[in-house]
Amino acid sequence: MNGENFGASERLVAAAYVRQGAQGRRAHELRLRALLEQGKCPEDGWDESTIELFLHELAIMDSNNFLGNCGVGEREGRVASGLVARRHYRLIHGIGRSGDISAVQPKAAGSSLLNKLTNLIVLDIIKLAGVRTVTSCFVVPMATGMSLTLCFLTLRHKRPKAKYIIWPRIDQKSCFKSMITAGFEPVVIENILENDELRTDLQGVEAKIQELGAENVLCVHSTTSCFAPRVPDRLEELAVICANYDIPHIVNNAYGVQSSKCMHLIQQGARVGRIDAFIQSLDKNFMVPVGGAIIAGFNDSFIKEISKMYPGRASASPSLDVFITLLSLGANGYRQLLKQRKEMFSYLTSELKKLAEIHNERLLDTPHNPISLAMSLKNLDEHSDTAVTQLGSMLFTRQVSGARVVPRNFQQTVNNYTFKGFMSHANNYPCAYLNAASAIGMKKQDVDMFLKRLNKCLKTFGKETNKGKDVSKTNDCHADLVEGEPEEPNKM
Amino acid sequence: MNGENFGASERLVAAAYVRQGAQGRRAHELRLRALLEQGKCPEDGWDESTIELFLHELAIMDSNNFLGNCGVGEREGRVASGLVARRHYRLIHGIGRSGDISAVQPKAAGSSLLNKLTNLIVLDIIKLAGVRTVTSCFVVPMATGMSLTLCFLTLRHKRPKAKYIIWPRIDQKSCFKSMITAGFEPVVIENILENDELRTDLQGVEAKIQELGAENVLCVHSTTSCFAPRVPDRLEELAVICANYDIPHIVNNAYGVQSSKCMHLIQQGARVGRIDAFIQSLDKNFMVPVGGAIIAGFNDSFIKEISKMYPGRASASPSLDVFITLLSLGANGYRQLLKQRKEMFSYLTSELKKLAEIHNERLLDTPHNPISLAMSLKNLDEHSDTAVTQLGSMLFTRQVSGARVVPRNFQQTVNNYTFKGFMSHANNYPCAYLNAASAIGMKKQDVDMFLKRLNKCLKTFGKETNKGKDVSKTNDCHADLVEGEPEEPNKM
Amino acid sequence: MNGENFGASERLVAAAYVRQGAQGRRAHELRLRALLEQGKCPEDGWDESTIELFLHELAIMDSNNFLGNCGVGEREGRVASGLVARRHYRLIHGIGRSGDISAVQPKAAGSSLLNKLTNLIVLDIIKLAGVRTVTSCFVVPMATGMSLTLCFLTLRHKRPKAKYIIWPRIDQKSCFKSMITAGFEPVVIENILENDELRTDLQGVEAKIQELGAENVLCVHSTTSCFAPRVPDRLEELAVICANYDIPHIVNNAYGVQSSKCMHLIQQGARVGRIDAFIQSLDKNFMVPVGGAIIAGFNDSFIKEISKMYPGRASASPSLDVFITLLSLGANGYRQLLKQRKEMFSYLTSELKKLAEIHNERLLDTPHNPISLAMSLKNLDEHSDTAVTQLGSMLFTRQVSGARVVPRNFQQTVNNYTFKGFMSHANNYPCAYLNAASAIGMKKQDVDMFLKRLNKCLKTFGKETNKGKDVSKTNDCHADLVEGEPEEPNKM
Amino acid sequence: MNGENFGASERLVAAAYVRQGAQGRRAHELRLRALLEQGKCPEDGWDESTIELFLHELAIMDSNNFLGNCGVGEREGRVASGLVARRHYRLIHGIGRSGDISAVQPKAAGSSLLNKLTNLIVLDIIKLAGVRTVTSCFVVPMATGMSLTLCFLTLRHKRPKAKYIIWPRIDQKSCFKSMITAGFEPVVIENILENDELRTDLQGVEAKIQELGAENVLCVHSTTSCFAPRVPDRLEELAVICANYDIPHIVNNAYGVQSSKCMHLIQQGARVGRIDAFIQSLDKNFMVPVGGAIIAGFNDSFIKEISKMYPGRASASPSLDVFITLLSLGANGYRQLLKQRKEMFSYLTSELKKLAEIHNERLLDTPHNPISLAMSLKNLDEHSDTAVTQLGSMLFTRQVSGARVVPRNFQQTVNNYTFKGFMSHANNYPCAYLNAASAIGMKKQDVDMFLKRLNKCLKTFGKETNKGKDVSKTNDCHADLVEGEPEEPNKM
Repeated sequence: MNGENFGASERLVAAAYVRQGAQGRRAHELRLRALLEQGKCPEDGWDESTIELFLHELAIMDSNNFLGNCGVGEREGRVASGLVARRHYRLIHGIGRSGDISAVQPKAAGSSLLNKLTNLIVLDIIKLAGVRTVTSCFVVPMATGMSLTLCFLTLRHKRPKAKYIIWPRIDQKSCFKSMITAGFEPVVIENILENDELRTDLQGVEAKIQELGAENVLCVHSTTSCFAPRVPDRLEELAVICANYDIPHIVNNAYGVQSSKCMHLIQQGARVGRIDAFIQSLDKNFMVPVGGAIIAGFNDSFIKEISKMYPGRASASPSLDVFITLLSLGANGYRQLLKQRKEMFSYLTSELKKLAEIHNERLLDTPHNPISLAMSLKNLDEHSDTAVTQLGSMLFTRQVSGARVVPRNFQQTVNNYTFKGFMSHANNYPCAYLNAASAIGMKKQDVDMFLKRLNKCLKTFGKETNKGKDVSKTNDCHADLVEGEPEEPNKM
Repeated sequence: MNGENFGASERLVAAAYVRQGAQGRRAHELRLRALLEQGKCPEDGWDESTIELFLHELAIMDSNNFLGNCGVGEREGRVASGLVARRHYRLIHGIGRSGDISAVQPKAAGSSLLNKLTNLIVLDIIKLAGVRTVTSCFVVPMATGMSLTLCFLTLRHKRPKAKYIIWPRIDQKSCFKSMITAGFEPVVIENILENDELRTDLQGVEAKIQELGAENVLCVHSTTSCFAPRVPDRLEELAVICANYDIPHIVNNAYGVQSSKCMHLIQQGARVGRIDAFIQSLDKNFMVPVGGAIIAGFNDSFIKEISKMYPGRASASPSLDVFITLLSLGANGYRQLLKQRKEMFSYLTSELKKLAEIHNERLLDTPHNPISLAMSLKNLDEHSDTAVTQLGSMLFTRQVSGARVVPRNFQQTVNNYTFKGFMSHANNYPCAYLNAASAIGMKKQDVDMFLKRLNKCLKTFGKETNKGKDVSKTNDCHADLVEGEPEEPNKM
Repeated sequence: MNGENFGASERLVAAAYVRQGAQGRRAHELRLRALLEQGKCPEDGWDESTIELFLHELAIMDSNNFLGNCGVGEREGRVASGLVARRHYRLIHGIGRSGDISAVQPKAAGSSLLNKLTNLIVLDIIKLAGVRTVTSCFVVPMATGMSLTLCFLTLRHKRPKAKYIIWPRIDQKSCFKSMITAGFEPVVIENILENDELRTDLQGVEAKIQELGAENVLCVHSTTSCFAPRVPDRLEELAVICANYDIPHIVNNAYGVQSSKCMHLIQQGARVGRIDAFIQSLDKNFMVPVGGAIIAGFNDSFIKEISKMYPGRASASPSLDVFITLLSLGANGYRQLLKQRKEMFSYLTSELKKLAEIHNERLLDTPHNPISLAMSLKNLDEHSDTAVTQLGSMLFTRQVSGARVVPRNFQQTVNNYTFKGFMSHANNYPCAYLNAASAIGMKKQDVDMFLKRLNKCLKTFGKETNKGKDVSKTNDCHADLVEGEPEEPNKM
Repeated sequence: MNGENFGASERLVAAAYVRQGAQGRRAHELRLRALLEQGKCPEDGWDESTIELFLHELAIMDSNNFLGNCGVGEREGRVASGLVARRHYRLIHGIGRSGDISAVQPKAAGSSLLNKLTNLIVLDIIKLAGVRTVTSCFVVPMATGMSLTLCFLTLRHKRPKAKYIIWPRIDQKSCFKSMITAGFEPVVIENILENDELRTDLQGVEAKIQELGAENVLCVHSTTSCFAPRVPDRLEELAVICANYDIPHIVNNAYGVQSSKCMHLIQQGARVGRIDAFIQSLDKNFMVPVGGAIIAGFNDSFIKEISKMYPGRASASPSLDVFITLLSLGANGYRQLLKQRKEMFSYLTSELKKLAEIHNERLLDTPHNPISLAMSLKNLDEHSDTAVTQLGSMLFTRQVSGARVVPRNFQQTVNNYTFKGFMSHANNYPCAYLNAASAIGMKKQDVDMFLKRLNKCLKTFGKETNKGKDVSKTNDCHADLVEGEPEEPNKM
């Protein structure tokens, strides 16, 4: 409703009431203006009504929603299904142009605005979360792994001779595949066991660079967030090595935005050495559906090069999700979630420690991992060959999701590369264990239910040697689950 | 409502009415069953109510919607915003696993089912549309260009020596970039002018293969759907060449599903020669939002290899959109859309021909292009240097979207490769022209409004030499629009 | 987005595109303006996007959606459930004030505007449908029966002595109850059989008025739309009688808006005689959910009196439904529906006639009834005592809804008044029959399926004398259905 | 998804995962079952997903959603607008039958079930809220006033001679109109001033009964929830009087469900004396949109009589809203809201008291009113004739809603009855005052903002005698607001 329409309304409803209605509208407009002018995540979250109104406003700026539009091209934002149109708020044109995923679309001013604002808000939140000197980022509708691939493909054009990527080992398939898919040879640097923790072998990295020749190395590919007992890589030192040898450095920060420690490592790495880009998942850090990532860095032109490397337009869906989510949370809401996660991590730590002791196991000591915990499963492992994987199946059928059991000596071949001790980030980690994590959005009741059910399962194993009944049942179930990946029924 | 609940309902509402209600439910269940058992697009479209019910059913099969779930992992399908949860029907886990975008997710039986069914339905529709011997396909949440890149990256592992991609010229940036991004060198084969049409230079292709050595050629990258006066590549002959030289053949079928001619070319190519994969856009063929593509082929294991090449999970959003759309259309509804498109193409052809003659121009004779038309702009081009681009701007400001003016002799450099006569698919096409297309979903009123506005604009140019007023205005506007891409204000 | 916000947007997206977006918005604003200024149903329907945007705009004019509102009253438009808030577009305050259901609410300018506009649009449509001289109307969130009651209660204050309501018999419970509930004594005037039709006994009406004394008669309560073989009352003549005796005249026009004949009768009645108010159902005429009615008339002050008689605020839900519906149809869309209904009536008439003849029955000749048809069931009735009701049950279980079988000599007591031959509008109609109607929104496939199933059922009766199987089954079902109303399993 | 469909799914997705999905579904079914079997509000609220799934299930039990339905009646649940269909979850048939608003509809088993369950859940909540011996209730889609009218109309049939309703004065128009509309003569019993409180004049009531003759009295119409300084009527004593004189007793409990005190009064009244029905608003007690009420009582057959008095079907919208709301809150959630309201009442009391003292006013001492408070405005009233109403306007324009200023000696005529000191429930209350209430759903920030703004407004009056500027402005505004009801700009 513009001024003229409010005026026309006064013929039907008393002017004083209409004026108050117009004032109500004005407050929404002011919110939008602050966002458009500052390009920052609002401190306080917006209510759904303001968000939806804004999305409606954006939609009617796109040509497919023009009342008098006529389309004679092959891509006109036509939608066959009303359900589909509505769930995208009639924003149909996606983001980007054929030349650049961050570019503005002439046909879709509203979608373009959405894309720009999303990238600005996300940049603001990355700063808030600890990487204060980040200068540029963009949301891409691909998961972390494919986004890493895009970074490697971009680097290829800058380092045409390079064939190798130096990669401190992390047992997560998509990280490994991101390099394979890009056509490079991953050079795996095994981790060093320090007490219970698995940490970056810095000397190994440097030695390998010297061995291969810096110019043959595309980049160092390091990792922050990971499953205990592995801990975030020594980013500062790696960044210094990269700077010294003039090698690019790409950081897989998959779910690290939620941890101030991970973000601090990136900030420090960039300060003292070299980090070219760091990649994070949208879903794991911002509680949105799977499928998007943020590519961020400290050098506008390199980040721009990556965005120009994406051929063609792309889905706006992940951008829309994170846009809605951050507007509804506000910076304060996101801070609050970060705080709660930290608290829940402390709680999970202390409670899991207690439970471990009851069952004569122990919580592995992994102080450098701010998100994931590991509890030893020594007794279970000694109990029988399959007990550890059985526990995984039992937890799965009891609706515990995300718990991950790691047996010893499991071997796996991924794209012709054989990993010994797969899942444990080491060829021969001393014990089997179980992982649990405190990720953003976790609730106290998640922890309590998990501990209760885990306790029950562990007790069952105590009894089961006699009866065997429940075990055979979970064995059956296990057989269904594994399908070639027996060791990780509900992981990866 | 299961049987027990219907039973319980009979205490509140007369049994005969409850029984009839249960019978009503049964009819919906039978629809679902047919879909699950046959894995085909239903002949008749489903109403929104059945579709939404099914999506609800799928959602509650995912662990994030289990009433008793507890999550202790880093990716639990938590959603911060209710708006976001609802617009995805609470299907949060995306599709695929880290190992394979087509794989089933243990945490998300519902999402997995959705993914499988979508791929089956889409396969069914590709057959219906003319490629009857297709055996395998999957939806990927990336636009056509990036999907082509993924295919090339997959081929790299099979042909490690190959550096070149043979590419009959098509002036569309993302096609070209798809090869650059994958790290290959495009070898451009200029088209041959046959009357008004630009057609594949088969001898040029074969000569280049011989020159480079077949083992150094990653693949031939051909195109079906394209802007007139270019026409679909001679797929049959290219497929035979590929078979003869044992070179893979990837077809960019961007918006070709909507044309029986394009689909027939692929079918024939596969029958007589070699086609490894053909890629099509979701939005351009199925009237869904931008951002997805279908990778299809005739060899299960190769298509599987591609799907395994995608590192990590991916957005389910494009799959969900096409799933909803095809269920709501049904096979009959889609056939109907194809039929209407064809009729609209005839209508546009005859009407544009008339208009062209009125303005002393002519409709270029491009019988092999089933979607796009071109009308010469000779007079305009002779009128002034900028008149052709001015016409583009004028149409844009008059809410004609998708019309594309192509001046002569425009030169453009894309990733260091300089294209002469860019946009026209030829170094020196004889005349400037304007493109219009009849794409799926186009309405008669689109055609009528387009012709009316185009007529008006062309008339303005007739008068303008005297007054000049309107032109200076569009000139202004034009200046805003071009921003470094002056030749394509509303295209690409 | 106001001008300032579009300005701010130009920092992010090229000005020319933003300007085009603003122009897109402007077109929506112009639609709203035309509505606000003219207060008429737009000729062409609005798309969902414009409607939803308007509802959003209205909602933010209500105090419960003010960003800075604080509420310290007992009715503040607070909503506990997001589902509820959304389904009402956050329009929570209902319509009216304690003094008047048509009054403006200071707390809710948006809801008030909605209410005013709805009443204006509905008035426009009533004119379009044939009552051109109507001057005033309002939507009330009560069904037709209760709305009639409200009219009678209003009249009581004008005619304190009156105890009787003259009512040409129509066998529909809520019509009868509307008078009982208001506390009056219905004086039933039996209909006259003219050929197959049951028509108003004008002499009977006049005689009764003279007998009771005009001052003791609250009003004449006549009916337009009704089940054949009853036909609309002779409104012109009744209106003249009312004028002559100075007796108010209330017309039950339940589903008569859809018929130009019914509307013409009202128009003529008002022209030549007296009609004080005519009441119509929202759901039956405008294809919205059950629960609203329109009270309309030719005298502003009387209609205003009725609206002031409603004590307290009221649900805006029926108003919202009809508002959305009429905006989405537009006047043209509604006209189109009226036309289709008429065509479907002809089709149903001719087809039912054929079917009747096949089964040795006949379509009763009821030319004055423009909506409902009746087919005799003589053979069935002679077949067995229960066959007619069995047919009703059979049709019900075969998902034929709305068909109504009328046995002879059924007797029913409603509020102590005993109707002989209930359902047939006459003490002793010559034959049993079946009703079917062509109501607004009916589709050809409804007619075809109905005839097919009816044909099958009638055939079953032919065979059944031997087998009896299917009958006993429907007998069972019938027993469930009847629950005290055995004669009308799926009616009233 | 039934068992067969889960089975069919196992061909596409591993059986173990499908089984877990089926188990997830089972949990939802069990919730439904508990509801259907127990007919009680669940202790813990349901998530939106379960609620929506249930509504979908109900919808497909209605004939308008049958896939094979054919409709040949005049009311077939057809819906023209998709927006409308969706916002009602495709439950179109409303509630009730022509004979009874609580009756089951053969065409709509789902809607009927919804109606039955809603009434059961609401009954459960009334018990929870304190009226433990209530036996029967139903939701009616009319506001409190019209629902009271319906009760009076029902009583008329039981007491044909009665003309009067005894009514302890409460200055709220719709209460008064509810009697007028029903056609009765309200006999106003003025309240007695006890300290600051206005309380029921029991002797006055009894004297009036004797004067009029019990058989001429339709009922006593008492009130619980009301604005201070009036307090709830002495229900126990009134109920005893009613029992003694054999006079029906109808209680207006408009927003009393939220107060344990009001509910206790009703419980006690029914225990020691006679209460025939008590009526409460849906919106004011359950945070749903305006437009519904609950009619409840202790005698099934009387409540049934009322429900049978409603002629015709009715809107299901208010039932649907309260159904969704109570399922989403659960009994615990509703208890929590009641608790919070009570706490907020204490907070508002203490803070308003402090503020009053600062401005040399006082909080009136009204210990029997559990919801509403009154603060004297003596100084303001002495300041100028219009200052009190100006304060009302100022608060309105400052987005304080629900605050109500009550001047002295305001006179108002409602339906020919003149109330002296209108709004204050007394002919001559000692002082002007301002009302504020702590109603369900109120937040601490409402209280804080209110107090801050009130404080500011009151300070303005201190300064304004000199400047006069702001006052003239509010005067202007006031002129707009009043429109014939100058004394209550934002009330009633």
